[in-house]
Amino acid sequence: MSTQTDDLFKNVISHAKEYGFVFQSSEIYDGLSAVYDYGQNGSELKNNIKTYWWKAMVQMNENIVGIDSAIFMHPTIWKASGHVDGFSDPMIDNKDSKKRYRADQLLEDRIAQLDEEGKTSEAEELQIEMDNALKAENLPRLRELIIEQNIKCPVSGTANWTDVRQFNLMFSTQVGAIADESDTIYLRPETAQGIFVNYLNVQKSGRMKIPFGIAQIGKAFRNEVIARQFIIRMREFEQMEMQFFVRPGTQREWFDKWKQTRLNWHLALGTAPEKYRYHEHTKLAHYADAAFDIEYNFPFGFKEVEGIHSRTDFDLSQHEKFSRKKMQYFDPEVDPETGKPYGNYIPYVIETSIGLDRMFLLTLINAYEEEDLSTEEKQDSRTVLRLHPALAPVKAAIFPLTKKDGLPEKAREIMDKLKLNFNLQYEEKDAIGKRYRRQDAIGTPFCITVDHQSLEDNTVTIRHRDTMEQERVNADDLERIIGDLVSWKNVL
Amino acid sequence: MSTQTDDLFKNVISHAKEYGFVFQSSEIYDGLSAVYDYGQNGSELKNNIKTYWWKAMVQMNENIVGIDSAIFMHPTIWKASGHVDGFSDPMIDNKDSKKRYRADQLLEDRIAQLDEEGKTSEAEELQIEMDNALKAENLPRLRELIIEQNIKCPVSGTANWTDVRQFNLMFSTQVGAIADESDTIYLRPETAQGIFVNYLNVQKSGRMKIPFGIAQIGKAFRNEVIARQFIIRMREFEQMEMQFFVRPGTQREWFDKWKQTRLNWHLALGTAPEKYRYHEHTKLAHYADAAFDIEYNFPFGFKEVEGIHSRTDFDLSQHEKFSRKKMQYFDPEVDPETGKPYGNYIPYVIETSIGLDRMFLLTLINAYEEEDLSTEEKQDSRTVLRLHPALAPVKAAIFPLTKKDGLPEKAREIMDKLKLNFNLQYEEKDAIGKRYRRQDAIGTPFCITVDHQSLEDNTVTIRHRDTMEQERVNADDLERIIGDLVSWKNVL
Repeated sequence: MSTQTDDLFKNVISHAKEYGFVFQSSEIYDGLSAVYDYGQNGSELKNNIKTYWWKAMVQMNENIVGIDSAIFMHPTIWKASGHVDGFSDPMIDNKDSKKRYRADQLLEDRIAQLDEEGKTSEAEELQIEMDNALKAENLPRLRELIIEQNIKCPVSGTANWTDVRQFNLMFSTQVGAIADESDTIYLRPETAQGIFVNYLNVQKSGRMKIPFGIAQIGKAFRNEVIARQFIIRMREFEQMEMQFFVRPGTQREWFDKWKQTRLNWHLALGTAPEKYRYHEHTKLAHYADAAFDIEYNFPFGFKEVEGIHSRTDFDLSQHEKFSRKKMQYFDPEVDPETGKPYGNYIPYVIETSIGLDRMFLLTLINAYEEEDLSTEEKQDSRTVLRLHPALAPVKAAIFPLTKKDGLPEKAREIMDKLKLNFNLQYEEKDAIGKRYRRQDAIGTPFCITVDHQSLEDNTVTIRHRDTMEQERVNADDLERIIGDLVSWKNVL
Repeated sequence: MSTQTDDLFKNVISHAKEYGFVFQSSEIYDGLSAVYDYGQNGSELKNNIKTYWWKAMVQMNENIVGIDSAIFMHPTIWKASGHVDGFSDPMIDNKDSKKRYRADQLLEDRIAQLDEEGKTSEAEELQIEMDNALKAENLPRLRELIIEQNIKCPVSGTANWTDVRQFNLMFSTQVGAIADESDTIYLRPETAQGIFVNYLNVQKSGRMKIPFGIAQIGKAFRNEVIARQFIIRMREFEQMEMQFFVRPGTQREWFDKWKQTRLNWHLALGTAPEKYRYHEHTKLAHYADAAFDIEYNFPFGFKEVEGIHSRTDFDLSQHEKFSRKKMQYFDPEVDPETGKPYGNYIPYVIETSIGLDRMFLLTLINAYEEEDLSTEEKQDSRTVLRLHPALAPVKAAIFPLTKKDGLPEKAREIMDKLKLNFNLQYEEKDAIGKRYRRQDAIGTPFCITVDHQSLEDNTVTIRHRDTMEQERVNADDLERIIGDLVSWKNVL
């Protein structure tokens, strides 16, 4: 990360705190690592991103419905999904510093170092050795490689390592107060399984026909070993996932469609297309037959924001196996080749999965600008969030020019008419210029000023965030003017 | 519970499943006790209740803002709040059946039994003895009372009891992968503390002045010993809480205001006022100086839906003590009595706390009607959800009269124009009457039918859920007609 982008990222983080977007969790208790709270502007922005996704996925698509399944689920679900056995990282402890590391990351760092030193063939060899060990889950071999490469703990400086052990990333807890019925359950590490185990309930009660989708927004939890980069990798985070159920054999066509549809969703917000790119997975997860990430160019480089995965029939088949309940769908449509209905099968699944917190950070970073407004006469600048108006936490701020002469009353009268439709803010303190700056900092698209002329002819000034231009309009037109700009129609 | 009301409750539960409102969690794995999932119609209804609350609390009140704090919090917070030491039930196990019971509930049942048998003075005496034991946290005495009363386990039929022990209702988990830094943390048992620990962050970054409020919607978790009555008492549930920060000495006036304001919020949905009542707490929690519940008359009796609590400065003072950070607010307003600013103080807090899942159940039960439509000629009936249109999961259903003659195309054309504004459903299967019934069952206020005349003059029929009356209107007026009825303006 260059100093400049490093500074940008730091500035966004401190801006997020100063203006009520993101606070460190439990800050007065010196914080809780890798957990964050959303403040008064952050929660509105996050809600607006959720609404945008929900409308785009559920409301606009006849064949997609939403659900809201619980965080707690039957523990066998995570056996079936592979998370109990497979959702873990190989960890190694340094006996002197007592610090714990991911064994594969120590080796990856070493490979990068060899590459830098020009020892390309050594690097390649190590990469192959490590990949083989990981694939075979050969933990002793991973440790051997670390010893052979003489990798040292950055804290203690020694190579005094423990064995490599698998560390599961799921949080567990005990449920049930009855002595003989207390069970270990997990906090879900992904929302997807809540959709899979409910898919037939939804299909039957909603009379859904394949192809159809089920969407969900909700919390998930991962006990990340190394949690970092602000809200990029948190232990408690939120996902927006949609599972799309299709006829086997048609998955590639639907995969391509969703890959494009989801990128279009991002671009509709007006983000520069070159900020985004696709990244194809070459190593596929055990359940997938194709996978692409949508990546955004963060100050620290391109990073996954959303994944589109062709998950085959893996999950549903596993649940059929572990629950001993039929997970098949009966397809009454006639196959033109055989002239008979397609009949019973386990659907294939295309998943679109977006990290809400990452999307939030992307939105904040992409909108953040420290704008130089200096003229020949004087230096000036402002920090402005150029958020899409549909996402802005506050749609308009209403200012009486002064605190007297009935201007506050007139301002509040206008506010009362508009507040049913829009999230508004009223401010009467400080000079108008200062008030403009405060609203720029939280991305409010409109500032409406009530002055003495307003009392005479019911007109007010509207000042636009991006252009900083002002125009005089009739107060009765405000609902339409604001409504047009902040409408979801502009992005859907 | 009488057979009739018992049946009503059972019917609502099975209706909730059949029509995609509520599913048992992990149903294909035979369920997870006291955990439920919201289906395609349930999640929309729940979201609409959330929106109604958020708009009423945050959007309509200049001095209330929202936040979204994490479920994970620093463990010392629950020390400060009293939950680590005090948030527990006295439990006793029967050694033969291995079943566990709440000691106080065994005694309560015994008291009720004595009352029924006319042994009033014995009942009163036992009540006093139990209350004293609970107050003194005298667990051996609770056991003595159970033995003295010869209370037996309903399963084993024996009085072979263990000691009474305190059982904490908080779920705990281990966080952090670093060997020497792994900590026990809790899943929050209430959302309120997330507001308290952030109150100065919000006040400063939002430039809030007392009196002001902070609202939050989010999950909370309690390891209930006896979880029961469908979604009335769940281990994972959702709260909508608002903490209102006031100047010490003014709490009573604000308490009275919020008590009324919150009841009005419920009544604005059109629920019969006699379905609601206040219940005053006579035994106050350690942090409260006044507390009222708003109760709703469920089929199984009046039950708390929302609590309004005057929480004094207890929580903030405790956090000041445990975090060693100042929790005081500086009040610049001039006290008319002294002529000086009120200055530094820890605010008093009025809390309004509503169980979202209970509110959901209330809404469903209150709307549910099995309506007899029989005439002299034939028997007929329907199940209809008379939901307030603003809360209905689907705002309108669009039906082509038949599947041919271009009617589906015309119906979809109308749908495409409206779907940006409203959650809609398209249905072309079965006779219109059957389609009406399906929409009645999920509470859709409007059914719009496209027939052959629609192709000629662009008119459609609108059928109203409650009256079942139909009228013919121009398709271009649909946006306005539906919009007027489902608008939040009708309840805010």
